[in-house]
Amino acid sequence: MKKIFYLLSAVLMITGCRQPAPGHQSSNSDQPLPDSVLPSWNEGKTRTAILEFVDAVTDSNDVNYVKPEDRIAVFDNDGTLWSEQPMYFQGLFAFDRIRSLAAQHPEWKTKQPYKAVLENDMKTLAEAGIMGIGQIVGASHAGMTSAEFKQIVLNWIDTARHPIKKVKYTELTYKPMKELILYLQQNGFKTFIVSGGGVDFMRPWAERAYNIPSENIVGTYANLKFEMVNDTPALRRESDGLFVDDGPGKPVGIQRFIGKQPIAAFGNSDGDLQMLQYSTIGKGIRFGLIVHHTDAEREWAYDRASHIGKLDKALDEAAKRNWTIVDMKKDWNTIY
Amino acid sequence: MKKIFYLLSAVLMITGCRQPAPGHQSSNSDQPLPDSVLPSWNEGKTRTAILEFVDAVTDSNDVNYVKPEDRIAVFDNDGTLWSEQPMYFQGLFAFDRIRSLAAQHPEWKTKQPYKAVLENDMKTLAEAGIMGIGQIVGASHAGMTSAEFKQIVLNWIDTARHPIKKVKYTELTYKPMKELILYLQQNGFKTFIVSGGGVDFMRPWAERAYNIPSENIVGTYANLKFEMVNDTPALRRESDGLFVDDGPGKPVGIQRFIGKQPIAAFGNSDGDLQMLQYSTIGKGIRFGLIVHHTDAEREWAYDRASHIGKLDKALDEAAKRNWTIVDMKKDWNTIY
Repeated sequence: MKKIFYLLSAVLMITGCRQPAPGHQSSNSDQPLPDSVLPSWNEGKTRTAILEFVDAVTDSNDVNYVKPEDRIAVFDNDGTLWSEQPMYFQGLFAFDRIRSLAAQHPEWKTKQPYKAVLENDMKTLAEAGIMGIGQIVGASHAGMTSAEFKQIVLNWIDTARHPIKKVKYTELTYKPMKELILYLQQNGFKTFIVSGGGVDFMRPWAERAYNIPSENIVGTYANLKFEMVNDTPALRRESDGLFVDDGPGKPVGIQRFIGKQPIAAFGNSDGDLQMLQYSTIGKGIRFGLIVHHTDAEREWAYDRASHIGKLDKALDEAAKRNWTIVDMKKDWNTIY
Repeated sequence: MKKIFYLLSAVLMITGCRQPAPGHQSSNSDQPLPDSVLPSWNEGKTRTAILEFVDAVTDSNDVNYVKPEDRIAVFDNDGTLWSEQPMYFQGLFAFDRIRSLAAQHPEWKTKQPYKAVLENDMKTLAEAGIMGIGQIVGASHAGMTSAEFKQIVLNWIDTARHPIKKVKYTELTYKPMKELILYLQQNGFKTFIVSGGGVDFMRPWAERAYNIPSENIVGTYANLKFEMVNDTPALRRESDGLFVDDGPGKPVGIQRFIGKQPIAAFGNSDGDLQMLQYSTIGKGIRFGLIVHHTDAEREWAYDRASHIGKLDKALDEAAKRNWTIVDMKKDWNTIY
């Protein structure tokens, strides 16, 4: 039933004729909220904060009303829209590629970080951080065309299984966050992913997984080179000219790709700190939210000490900035 | 009346509830076409080629049907959506800036290209090409914040007058092309500007002038640096890390910002050659169009020998690729 709802919504969006927003149902009213609004979110102050923000910016009589073209909402991906343990999933993707190419590269047996990949040494890899993984991704995928890379990503996302959860990676996307994206879209928001992950890694599957079109996906990228080969155009991936859409790079990516300051930002780690600052400090009502991974049973529990998705400075700043913290264990009745 | 039509359309787009496409009115039918479809285009093979292409990709019974999410159309700006003589308008903007800052820079009196600007030496400036103008733009606007630059652009576009036509620059946007953008949007296309012009120069006014939202505007950019100053976030413009969204850079910009191969491309010069190749060579029906400046009386007439908007290689390739050529004098009953 939920699937049909998503599908229908996607079709309506695509045909450019979706229904008007469901209106300005006040979260303070005595009426019970309809089941269709954020059903995976438990009642409480987190859910209420979201509803009140959306009510305010969509109510043309409210002092905080925002015109639809300025209702820009940005979402981090890793740890915010899908899980990121025991390693960023793009890292696991790159590791699978390294393993499948290892026979052609005997030197990798003794050379880091390839050695760590082949020995499944997650600790060393986690310590290499998103930049180290970026190097592996870049090195293992430079030289091929964008079309070839897309096909490799699609094959992987269709067949690979998470090492612990044993399910497809797209099954590890968060149901409450997908509901939130849809809810914002239904209320006239333009929703974007702004991720440290590679833009060409996300686009092949994220469009369908999150109902966010490829042009609304911002991420890390390197140079491309246009070529005509046998009268056929191609874009070849290069390893230089890396733009890292993480940390202070996120506001840069937002300005470059979107050209407007968002009014809402959703993240989970210190890599989202500057995006949250850029989106929430400004005129009018703003909304910042941090997904706090507190559920060791259903997902993972980690924050200040984690190599992956470290949440430390942004957690301190949340109190100062009045950002909403999702307690995953308490606020979400369903994770996936 | 036309203004109201545009405004209404924009409002409907923004509210996310525009009407379905007006359908698959065949251009071969005996019925006269309604006045509302491309009224500034004269009847003839150019207009017919556009209508037949749109008919084919929007008719779900046609072998060439394309799903709305893949109906990507890309437009060059200078010379395609607005005039570009006697100089790219962003060049004229930068020259106005140089003049207003000249008192603080006495050294400019003897230093090129500033000397040419101060002496109004258009020949030298035209020969400097888009890259030379890019340097002037970059040099004269580095160091300020994105917000400051936006305000300067807005002030200029609201007050500056074209040196020959003596009207505001936004009054030199082409009515037939704006009708075409709207027509494509009404038929479920996603429309993008992909211009050699600076993305931050276009966005402040192009959103309203062409009914294309800021996130659908792709252009030349340099590095930005995120800063927190007095607890306020800002993006500072730097002069390095230039990405030139022109020539072979246009397919790169398309892949980076949009992530899909367009099915229709609209340009006017050799700077659009690779964008036209990338968009029109591929499976299924494609549409390439070149605006040929043939109207010395109402606009300007130039092609192979022009320093600005040189159209030479792309004109040769048009015949080979079956691209549609707009003869501005013959095909457009109204220019502006």
